[in-house]
Amino acid sequence: MSPDIPYEITDRDYAGIAQKVGEFLLQEMEKSSAKGFVLGLSGGIDSAVLACMCGRVASDRTLAVIMPDSDITPNTETADGIRIAGLAGIDHRIIDIRHIIRQCLQQVKPDSRAAGNLRARIRSDMLYYHANAENRLVLGSSNKSEYLMGYFTKFGDGAADLTPLISLYKLQVRGMAGFLGVPQDIIAKKSSPHLWENHYAEDELGATYEQIDSVLYCIHDRKMSVPDAVHATGLDETLVEHILCTSRNTAHKRMAPRGPGTGAA
Amino acid sequence: MSPDIPYEITDRDYAGIAQKVGEFLLQEMEKSSAKGFVLGLSGGIDSAVLACMCGRVASDRTLAVIMPDSDITPNTETADGIRIAGLAGIDHRIIDIRHIIRQCLQQVKPDSRAAGNLRARIRSDMLYYHANAENRLVLGSSNKSEYLMGYFTKFGDGAADLTPLISLYKLQVRGMAGFLGVPQDIIAKKSSPHLWENHYAEDELGATYEQIDSVLYCIHDRKMSVPDAVHATGLDETLVEHILCTSRNTAHKRMAPRGPGTGAA
Repeated sequence: MSPDIPYEITDRDYAGIAQKVGEFLLQEMEKSSAKGFVLGLSGGIDSAVLACMCGRVASDRTLAVIMPDSDITPNTETADGIRIAGLAGIDHRIIDIRHIIRQCLQQVKPDSRAAGNLRARIRSDMLYYHANAENRLVLGSSNKSEYLMGYFTKFGDGAADLTPLISLYKLQVRGMAGFLGVPQDIIAKKSSPHLWENHYAEDELGATYEQIDSVLYCIHDRKMSVPDAVHATGLDETLVEHILCTSRNTAHKRMAPRGPGTGAA
Repeated sequence: MSPDIPYEITDRDYAGIAQKVGEFLLQEMEKSSAKGFVLGLSGGIDSAVLACMCGRVASDRTLAVIMPDSDITPNTETADGIRIAGLAGIDHRIIDIRHIIRQCLQQVKPDSRAAGNLRARIRSDMLYYHANAENRLVLGSSNKSEYLMGYFTKFGDGAADLTPLISLYKLQVRGMAGFLGVPQDIIAKKSSPHLWENHYAEDELGATYEQIDSVLYCIHDRKMSVPDAVHATGLDETLVEHILCTSRNTAHKRMAPRGPGTGAA
């Protein structure tokens, strides 16, 4: 097995997938009588793929919002966002969230993790502002790997009307990026949510995407037992267990708000 | 039928309901290993009931955050929030979101409805900041009437880990408020989300809560046809249809973000 292809994920028909995602976007726009879409463009691969997909079917109806916190976001990310919007042929706006974040943080005790998640939530708020004001649907960039690992901010980047990439593992997103003509330097970039400085996805996840995708595919899609997944992937049992536990322990992030069965009404 | 009791909603055993909600809160706190709860206190009846319920079972583990936008929130609401926290015996903090909102609005075109929803979302962000920093669960005040009517801001006041009041129609919340000792002036107050000035729920909903609860109960819980609901409630058919359509047209607000079935992975 090639090291860059997760165990037995065989659907790499990117033209076919792009076609289906495009149809889905147009159908949902029509069903909801929306004027178009709005998405956040971070400079990373996921939102780049999303932007390019929108560009193919709804270039004149898609708005990309680039939302650096200029206190911590590298300028190169903003530049990459602008470059992607241009390649996708979609409009973009830039909103620096620095002063919004500073205002929020003035009123609470410092906590760098909470502040990082706050950045993701403020970005979602600004996307929804545009959605409300201009009758657009908010598109989220979540992929299957990060969704199943709970690697998103609840009601932050996890907040969207539609998640067009949710069926694609991260390595499929990389393949799709190549198919769509996303520049190689953006594809090769180390994945980072940039919620704080030096914030890298694989460091925080404790595994590479190759490992994560292989294990999730075996256990989630193929319903393998842990020993079978260990055998199939050739990975260490501790690592397989770590990936599985991370997925299970973040189940609450994928649940709708829940209430008691009071028997009332 | 008494005008203040929705058609045939017979569960008004408020002691029993309060007991079940209390057990639910404690169970969820234990399951998630959370330190406690955090909720927004608006000065209105729903969050007052929620605060009092928390006060009964977890007074030393509940934080209420009162978040006026002092540009538009009446001072009386903030005062009522403080009063309720005192009655419930729970800690409170006050965060004026005015400057945060102003910073956000500086970067976008004016739109009063989008700005109103933004206020609800910023409040959610601040609750989640406390949740993240202090390992608390966010409690939402949504009741069944407003949930089914889609009368909430998606990813704003609709964003929570737990929604303890979600099984209760608004008129049951009023009954519960009486049972819990919420002051009569807060119970009798005209319901308002205060997302903009002179923003009243029943005006915006186009029906009174008595009408809404009766119709929703007949159609949602009792699965009646429209003609049967018209007959049972004694309400005008146009009004019944209006309530039903509002509920149906807001279904998207109750749905999780959705993606295409690409057949991938």
